[in-house]
Amino acid sequence: MSAGNALWERVAASFARQGLMTHLGARLVRVEPGLCEVALPYSDKVTQQQLGFHGGAIGALADIAGGYAGLTQAPEGMEVTSVEFKINFMAAFQGGELRATGQVVKAGRRVIVTTAEVIHLSPEGKESVCAVMQQTLMPVPKTF
Amino acid sequence: MSAGNALWERVAASFARQGLMTHLGARLVRVEPGLCEVALPYSDKVTQQQLGFHGGAIGALADIAGGYAGLTQAPEGMEVTSVEFKINFMAAFQGGELRATGQVVKAGRRVIVTTAEVIHLSPEGKESVCAVMQQTLMPVPKTF
Amino acid sequence: MSAGNALWERVAASFARQGLMTHLGARLVRVEPGLCEVALPYSDKVTQQQLGFHGGAIGALADIAGGYAGLTQAPEGMEVTSVEFKINFMAAFQGGELRATGQVVKAGRRVIVTTAEVIHLSPEGKESVCAVMQQTLMPVPKTF
Amino acid sequence: MSAGNALWERVAASFARQGLMTHLGARLVRVEPGLCEVALPYSDKVTQQQLGFHGGAIGALADIAGGYAGLTQAPEGMEVTSVEFKINFMAAFQGGELRATGQVVKAGRRVIVTTAEVIHLSPEGKESVCAVMQQTLMPVPKTF
Repeated sequence: MSAGNALWERVAASFARQGLMTHLGARLVRVEPGLCEVALPYSDKVTQQQLGFHGGAIGALADIAGGYAGLTQAPEGMEVTSVEFKINFMAAFQGGELRATGQVVKAGRRVIVTTAEVIHLSPEGKESVCAVMQQTLMPVPKTF
Repeated sequence: MSAGNALWERVAASFARQGLMTHLGARLVRVEPGLCEVALPYSDKVTQQQLGFHGGAIGALADIAGGYAGLTQAPEGMEVTSVEFKINFMAAFQGGELRATGQVVKAGRRVIVTTAEVIHLSPEGKESVCAVMQQTLMPVPKTF
Repeated sequence: MSAGNALWERVAASFARQGLMTHLGARLVRVEPGLCEVALPYSDKVTQQQLGFHGGAIGALADIAGGYAGLTQAPEGMEVTSVEFKINFMAAFQGGELRATGQVVKAGRRVIVTTAEVIHLSPEGKESVCAVMQQTLMPVPKTF
Repeated sequence: MSAGNALWERVAASFARQGLMTHLGARLVRVEPGLCEVALPYSDKVTQQQLGFHGGAIGALADIAGGYAGLTQAPEGMEVTSVEFKINFMAAFQGGELRATGQVVKAGRRVIVTTAEVIHLSPEGKESVCAVMQQTLMPVPKTF
């Protein structure tokens, strides 16, 4: 889905306010009902001690991919907050970029459940599974 | 626990190589056998859209607190890698700093299990529970 | 904590209605504000293929230990339901019994977070850590 | 896939040894490379206090669906053991039966990651999402 529609605008407006994501260099890639994809290029801001992408950065990316997938199905005027998430790391990667795609499994009134898959895109275009996440969100009043 | 001993040096040497942690402004606070405490001051690098600490930053901090607790019990010459972690967020906080304390529950040969508690310290010194994490680590050869 | 008080009665009344727990032979051991301990003796009803306690049985026991710890802090007239849980298994055990102790980390209005530790008690009285769990509960209306 | 082939036999032989699953009335439905489906009919052996399927029973079913999906990709002569799992419960159900389908996300040498989806099949044939799970397995020597 492309920039310009209401769903994209809703997510993009919230995303732009995330200091962490802006600072790490993440960008919004795709927004659809119940789905959100975000990208994080490799840089020295996102590494761990062995110079791969940091698990914390991978987790943060998956967390917002799932969170914004959830936001697309939250009532107007609401934001969502992460109650919890759980992430499995499958392999370490350097260079290229990460792509996290979050999808809503069930959007309930009180709780939204999502999953996200994080893949690594090498500079040569090779795709590899990097991580999978499962997450619980809760709609909360928007304060901005 | 204090700077100068071998355990602190081992963890500090690895910590200093983490681009993500350096970039976000995190610092090592305490290292003991089976325990590690790290701190993350509030700044515009660690915020979410409602200006609280970002869940991704909280997760990253808990991940390394648990990871370095595990490293204190990994064989010499080994590093540890996160197989997975799961984190619950209890409340949102602005200002002050976060303190994550990781502890080893069981250090096995193939798998190390840890938990971490993240508290928020307000500028006035008030402590509040922010998050709890449970994590699986795996010893891996050190490559640096 | 002991039989006879209101907290024990509240939990015991709910526990007795659990077909799964009754069938597997679990029993309530201890109930305090924010805490619940349950026991599960070894039998051929709770085994996996290598004849150890089944991860599913360990998970079920931890789930209710956490759930009933949460129930002690839920409003009167409410039950709690598990939103999710995550459990790490530390070692396999045969014989003796399991003891799961759940504790409330934070009881919020919308969400209750608990942790549980499961230990194995050998026939000779030796205690070993078997599993640790982290759980999210939600208060729901009681229907019985 | 149908009974009779080697993959089915390998899983069925292990499944038949699970006291918990036999006692609860679970049965093996489908085995394919990297996939396993198991069923659990409703009975008074699997209920919680509000008479729905018990979260512990749902978790046990998802655990073995993921575990046996993993077993199909473990080296010959090995069994798998659950390092940990995490499960989200989406709704409560009575009657009918549960179907858990586990799938391997990545089968590594040291760690196998799986996910499972649990659906509820009502007596009228209606399918509803009941739970989703994410799991870490480890190959271990077979002792039987």
